[in-house]
Amino acid sequence: MKDAAMYIPTYSDVEAAHERIKPYIRHTPVRTSDYLNELTGAELFFKCENFQEPGAFKVRGASNAVFGLDEAQAAKGVATHSSGNHASCLSYAAMLRGIPCNVVMPHTAPQAKKDTVRRYGGKITECEPSTTSREETFAKVQEQTGGDFVHPYNDPRVIAGQGTCAKELMEQTGGLDIVVAPIGGGGMISGTCLTLSNIAPRTQIIAAEPEQADDAYRSFKAGHIIADDAPETIADGLKVPLKDLTWHFVSNHVSDILTASEDEIIEAMKITWKHLRIVAEASSSVPLATILKNKDAFAGKRVGVIITGGNVDLDLLPWLK
Amino acid sequence: MKDAAMYIPTYSDVEAAHERIKPYIRHTPVRTSDYLNELTGAELFFKCENFQEPGAFKVRGASNAVFGLDEAQAAKGVATHSSGNHASCLSYAAMLRGIPCNVVMPHTAPQAKKDTVRRYGGKITECEPSTTSREETFAKVQEQTGGDFVHPYNDPRVIAGQGTCAKELMEQTGGLDIVVAPIGGGGMISGTCLTLSNIAPRTQIIAAEPEQADDAYRSFKAGHIIADDAPETIADGLKVPLKDLTWHFVSNHVSDILTASEDEIIEAMKITWKHLRIVAEASSSVPLATILKNKDAFAGKRVGVIITGGNVDLDLLPWLK
Repeated sequence: MKDAAMYIPTYSDVEAAHERIKPYIRHTPVRTSDYLNELTGAELFFKCENFQEPGAFKVRGASNAVFGLDEAQAAKGVATHSSGNHASCLSYAAMLRGIPCNVVMPHTAPQAKKDTVRRYGGKITECEPSTTSREETFAKVQEQTGGDFVHPYNDPRVIAGQGTCAKELMEQTGGLDIVVAPIGGGGMISGTCLTLSNIAPRTQIIAAEPEQADDAYRSFKAGHIIADDAPETIADGLKVPLKDLTWHFVSNHVSDILTASEDEIIEAMKITWKHLRIVAEASSSVPLATILKNKDAFAGKRVGVIITGGNVDLDLLPWLK
Repeated sequence: MKDAAMYIPTYSDVEAAHERIKPYIRHTPVRTSDYLNELTGAELFFKCENFQEPGAFKVRGASNAVFGLDEAQAAKGVATHSSGNHASCLSYAAMLRGIPCNVVMPHTAPQAKKDTVRRYGGKITECEPSTTSREETFAKVQEQTGGDFVHPYNDPRVIAGQGTCAKELMEQTGGLDIVVAPIGGGGMISGTCLTLSNIAPRTQIIAAEPEQADDAYRSFKAGHIIADDAPETIADGLKVPLKDLTWHFVSNHVSDILTASEDEIIEAMKITWKHLRIVAEASSSVPLATILKNKDAFAGKRVGVIITGGNVDLDLLPWLK
């Protein structure tokens, strides 16, 4: 699938993805809160992707890749490198199809992440926590298994899959002025851009990013990709850089990128838990943090917010540190 | 409304309640989890009453009482004694109708509970933390205000309102073998009995109770109400005793009462947060605790579980103590 990375997905790919993955994903609900509407002055619609079975929107793109494989490739399975939600979601989708999933992960990854991948039948090959080791190890695994590489975000199948989330959100709300989603590598934002630029071109798309990992913000201002080396943030799903395909969507369709500090993210996370009564990751709380910080930009608007995931270590809550 | 306490509500009261309160409550979603189904061997359907705006099912009964008042009584408002979800839900419903709500609460009640009641416009009169002081203070408040007494559970309007939850759950799931709900004073269980005995008489109703506050269990076995004095449990919504009206439903329609230890409740609470990714109170976790403890009784069955509320102090999580 090497050439596939150069293909820019279209909205008909999103529609095809939706039909393909519907049996395997949850049609997640939209939560609202009068209290949060009063607090922000906006009308907020939270799309609960934390309610996907493996706890993250990434099951959409992963399922689209897995269930789109022909039988010959499916027999060899899929492979990826990730220590986050993509690894568990790809393992989950592969388990549903009954095909192998190989994951390269640094040996330093949290035990809970490894346990989840294995629970879904994923096979882990550990590497050193460096890019060189990861690439070498992954090349070896792929050569041995012939598994199809499903990149966590820089893959048209993945982006088309993530685009199904904004499609559902627009159907469920009947229209929005703004959609805000977190940005890390840009998979969710790219899928959102792909969908909204086609079905709701007047809806603004705002990306939300941690100040401490603001490479997308700086890329957006500079007009070219700036990649940081290992930024540190509580929003651990958002540390990765943009790639060519996601940069295409970000640079063409995103209206603005807003950032929030670590304290603002943690406060928004606690507010989300307290008033929406859902368990959402720190990464998922960056959008609300930016809305609370920039109330004037959102006041009076109908605003969709994508709660991207809910895999949290309940013994290590950031506001209790 | 003193005589109202003697009236046993019927299913048409539930239907009337549902029509009356629909504009003021959330039609809460039902959550499922493949993981929890595998863990228990049952097919579980969790009705998320924690997603009501004030965070608890009690907004159903409170709204039914508040919006059922005639104009003359409405002008005088409502009154209750409660330091829990009933106080905030009654204040919330009164705020929506724009009428006064007076709440008698011990001065020892948590500040957060007082803040919530006041946020919804409820007026708090503090008493000493004793039954005598509470009754004296409440009599005085009621005499001064003429507010209609809405008991937290021993009130036919409240029970009919709570019965709308099981009605929705049956509509959403298309039928269940068993419904499990926590039991404290018995308002939710009574509403569930009222609804299911009419629309699904073959569905078993199981009440779940903390071992350390097992007065309903002992009442059920003894055949008459046994009331404890101030039991201690992490499930703080379930400390209150049965009363005549709720005893009527419990003694006639409940199939069994199962209990769980404090540790089992806390473990079930953590599992709920981790795998359903919702914020649920300890009281709401007693049903899952009893299901995990009595797997054989539930295996292979379609089981509804009512997540009664989600008002939790996020700084004091029981598994971190």
